[in-house]
Amino acid sequence: MTAELTVDFEPLGRRAHIAPGTTLLEAARQAGVGLNAVCGGAGTCGTCRVRVVAGEVSPPTEAEHEALTEGFRLACQTRVLSDVRVDVPPDSITAPQRAQIEGRERPVELDPTMRGFDVALTPPSLTDLRADATRLHDALHQQYGITIDRFDCAALYQLPALLRENEWHVRVAIRDGEVIAVAPAGNSLLGLAVDIGTTKLAAYLVDLESGETLGSAGGMNPQIAYGEDVMARISYAMEGEAPARELQHVLVGGLNDLALELCAQAGRESTEIVEAVLVGNTCMHHLALGLPVAQLGLAPYVPVLTSPYDLKARELGLRLAPGASVHLLPNIAGFVGADHVAMLLATRLHEAREIAVGLDIGTNTEISLAVDGRLLSCSCASGPAFEGAHIRDGMRAAPGAVEWVRLVDEKVEYQTIDGAPPVGICGSGVLDGVAELRRIGVLRANGAMRLGSHPRVRTADSGSEFLLVPAGERGAPRDLVITRKDVNEIQLAKGAIRAGIEVLLSEAGLEADQIKRVVVAGAFGTYLDVDSALAVGMFPPLPRERFVQVGNAAGIGAKLALVSRHCRRVAEEIARRVEYVELTTHPRFVEEYTAALMLP
Amino acid sequence: MTAELTVDFEPLGRRAHIAPGTTLLEAARQAGVGLNAVCGGAGTCGTCRVRVVAGEVSPPTEAEHEALTEGFRLACQTRVLSDVRVDVPPDSITAPQRAQIEGRERPVELDPTMRGFDVALTPPSLTDLRADATRLHDALHQQYGITIDRFDCAALYQLPALLRENEWHVRVAIRDGEVIAVAPAGNSLLGLAVDIGTTKLAAYLVDLESGETLGSAGGMNPQIAYGEDVMARISYAMEGEAPARELQHVLVGGLNDLALELCAQAGRESTEIVEAVLVGNTCMHHLALGLPVAQLGLAPYVPVLTSPYDLKARELGLRLAPGASVHLLPNIAGFVGADHVAMLLATRLHEAREIAVGLDIGTNTEISLAVDGRLLSCSCASGPAFEGAHIRDGMRAAPGAVEWVRLVDEKVEYQTIDGAPPVGICGSGVLDGVAELRRIGVLRANGAMRLGSHPRVRTADSGSEFLLVPAGERGAPRDLVITRKDVNEIQLAKGAIRAGIEVLLSEAGLEADQIKRVVVAGAFGTYLDVDSALAVGMFPPLPRERFVQVGNAAGIGAKLALVSRHCRRVAEEIARRVEYVELTTHPRFVEEYTAALMLP
Repeated sequence: MTAELTVDFEPLGRRAHIAPGTTLLEAARQAGVGLNAVCGGAGTCGTCRVRVVAGEVSPPTEAEHEALTEGFRLACQTRVLSDVRVDVPPDSITAPQRAQIEGRERPVELDPTMRGFDVALTPPSLTDLRADATRLHDALHQQYGITIDRFDCAALYQLPALLRENEWHVRVAIRDGEVIAVAPAGNSLLGLAVDIGTTKLAAYLVDLESGETLGSAGGMNPQIAYGEDVMARISYAMEGEAPARELQHVLVGGLNDLALELCAQAGRESTEIVEAVLVGNTCMHHLALGLPVAQLGLAPYVPVLTSPYDLKARELGLRLAPGASVHLLPNIAGFVGADHVAMLLATRLHEAREIAVGLDIGTNTEISLAVDGRLLSCSCASGPAFEGAHIRDGMRAAPGAVEWVRLVDEKVEYQTIDGAPPVGICGSGVLDGVAELRRIGVLRANGAMRLGSHPRVRTADSGSEFLLVPAGERGAPRDLVITRKDVNEIQLAKGAIRAGIEVLLSEAGLEADQIKRVVVAGAFGTYLDVDSALAVGMFPPLPRERFVQVGNAAGIGAKLALVSRHCRRVAEEIARRVEYVELTTHPRFVEEYTAALMLP
Repeated sequence: MTAELTVDFEPLGRRAHIAPGTTLLEAARQAGVGLNAVCGGAGTCGTCRVRVVAGEVSPPTEAEHEALTEGFRLACQTRVLSDVRVDVPPDSITAPQRAQIEGRERPVELDPTMRGFDVALTPPSLTDLRADATRLHDALHQQYGITIDRFDCAALYQLPALLRENEWHVRVAIRDGEVIAVAPAGNSLLGLAVDIGTTKLAAYLVDLESGETLGSAGGMNPQIAYGEDVMARISYAMEGEAPARELQHVLVGGLNDLALELCAQAGRESTEIVEAVLVGNTCMHHLALGLPVAQLGLAPYVPVLTSPYDLKARELGLRLAPGASVHLLPNIAGFVGADHVAMLLATRLHEAREIAVGLDIGTNTEISLAVDGRLLSCSCASGPAFEGAHIRDGMRAAPGAVEWVRLVDEKVEYQTIDGAPPVGICGSGVLDGVAELRRIGVLRANGAMRLGSHPRVRTADSGSEFLLVPAGERGAPRDLVITRKDVNEIQLAKGAIRAGIEVLLSEAGLEADQIKRVVVAGAFGTYLDVDSALAVGMFPPLPRERFVQVGNAAGIGAKLALVSRHCRRVAEEIARRVEYVELTTHPRFVEEYTAALMLP
């Protein structure tokens, strides 16, 4: 038997099990990583560039010597000699990972903090020696009746040259009486809204003067390399000042990249972006600001800052317009952050006239219950299982991921993202699988597999498992399976969410069937099958029509705050109104959680 | 004859002419540079450390190897082998250069922008999960009735650790509703006022809560290495972005050094300084802010900014409290800057009930005329002669400088700073010399020396000269002289000042004898002999008692603005009220200047 080696593809989170000597390109194909390979693996096109981060591989071939720089290798030329870890640059990937950037828009009256004015100045002369700043001040007052009382120093720095190079005719961005940017006359002001997830970033480029979304883009949160969940990031940040700065630095690098990408798409410059709105969970919020997070990792999990916050983009290292500002929506508590406020803002849950629940499902799941003008919120550690982590054949929602499963008689039906050959199972696929296995009686209520209940149930070294996709069917050396342990991971995750809902209901003195609407948002929430979620007991047993999936509501909320000062005030009010319920110390939590672990 | 080598001591601006093999310590003594030498030159105390910047010297001795690091040499052990340039660190100088930091104080009601509050917080608990920032906000509101609405990001960064390390009892600096700094409870807030001269810096450390001046310190403007006057600095800055940044960088470095020095004197930390007020001429103002100065060098000499300006100290690279702010007083025009506004503020010339003139004499001299509530101001290029530059044996006002001269019969009486052996002549000494030479008839009205009019008048290669101190008398190889060219330099300088006064008078339709008060401020203005200035015609012929010398009024004005918001408003009003008179294009200037060149 050939010794099996593993190849981990980062930041995609995919693993291949391959024989020694296999090329990285082959390993990538097996792992469902869509590497570019225009020449078909001949080593001539140079498009399958990757970086070997750890492990032993074959020395560079002659073809590579010509094509490569900076430590890159061609995946088609590189053979694996040990377990290796490979970094795949975005350029080398054919199909991007499924981005969670879409969401239900809601109309809003345009009322941005930042306003743009084209203004023409008379040049100085011996009889008119006013300073450049005074000249601009006076012209704005004359032409628009506006009084500016401050001048950002970076904008001021550019003023003399811009005035003289543009024949004293410029466009000025003004925010609360402060000149933020000066540019050649003409172009509209741009804004950037970003939802900073623990795993993913979703960014939107918005024309602040028309309100139009010019583009959206998703990407990985580069902090993923420092730990997959919030606690891992906190631990890393606590190692010292340099690691904390590093986390902030890589995150801001990711934001800068998205800004550049979006502006390139729209044919604009990132220096035209005059304001950004950032939302994220409280840890991401603090890491983005460079605030200490140590106290977020220790009971009673107190944030440094919950109020809405404005600062200069340059203080963070964001490369936008020189004087651009950043607005961060308020947080609610250590584990209910600005992203949840944005979600509530976007879904208008705070205005609900009926009893309603809103969930933002992710590595942490935030839940809010709206009842009679009250808003009760909690956070539960649902873990990364729904992101495909800690699942034997799990993967993130990328091409080739099994995303939908049905068990019909003894047949297994499934569907993959983009219809690509199956390479792994993403969160919604695992959830479907567990729901179906329970429905047809393969799983007991406690999650154990009944041996002999289905021809595909079998016993492996690690325990019982269900054969989802045989190796032959997907043209790869290994079967895709759902293990007893995978089922368990799903039970833990869905149990945490359900327990959170139940605790909130008990706090409000309600029964589950009084809930008239359940709004499901977030990366995983967008794609999950509500019937499957009901089948495993993630949600209380309510009629299907009471559920609505709204996509990336946090991102939509960030966009709303970007273009509307009214929405910022509403967000602040939401954060102030929320009654936060701490689950970890709640008297009913353990009981509810234990009960919720069972499969209905 | 022994070949003569030169040793230049920087930043003091002194030169020694010595024989090869002379030690640097000996050269320093000859040049009047008071180097520490506790051990008397035995190479054991290590106090005479200097850095050889250019030229050839003897290799380090054994004594030096033990004592030294970082490229320093011991002056007593180092022998000169070629022309050399030496950098003297402040630590190595016995007597500091005469600093122009004293000035007439005036009482002012304490009303700083920055206020400090000791505040005690209740620690968080499971039933009180408020964020650190909210907790502080609420405690300030409860204990002082103050509402804060912003939090500087750098102050916020420090908040969690400071609260926890000080048992939730801290001192908070607040400015216009913004938390600027958080520190352990107890210490008062500090402020820094700096007058940034083209040549010199004068800095004051002030207790913002008592108004007390805790210390003052003077130093060279490190930009001096990039050109001695404003035009030279502008030329250097125009060479590109890097040179401009460098000018800002070295200046801020000088300010940081002064802040450290002052805090060390007072037993405090520079991170306790929460606000700084900077004044300087318009070019220094712009260079401090990092603003472009190109347009200050070209007619019509338009500044980028004349309004008062506030920004974060960190934006400039000033290392004060993390959230500290900097206030810059307003400028009036391209060549009448915030330092003149500060001088007017300190001397209350803007409130004068009688006709008064205020002068701030420096490389550029700013002049204001107060009449019937009007303020007319101009600037004239008086040049660096009064700083000892462009004068054959000129030097800055440091120990050993001849600062006072009287010619009695055929004898020459003189006095040096600190009574040290004469090493050169500073501005007030040259002015006295010229005045005396004219009084006793050695000089004609046009500045020419009458040969044979005095036994000490002689002819040298470069023209006629007056022997002030023979070599033997001062124990040095060379005589100190006043040359025909030196007289000419003084004529140009004093003529420019006088012409400025006359043009302002003509603008206001006044005669000179209507001036009831002449306020003389500035580095040179502090030490000049008013009788000599009258004798050479620098000032109109007015009774001696109408003149008052007020010292560094600009520095005093900066201090006033530091502790009083009212004074900042007054400064703004002064800048707005001033009617600027451009001399270079004024129809009467050339005529007045030509007339003013003559010696009365």
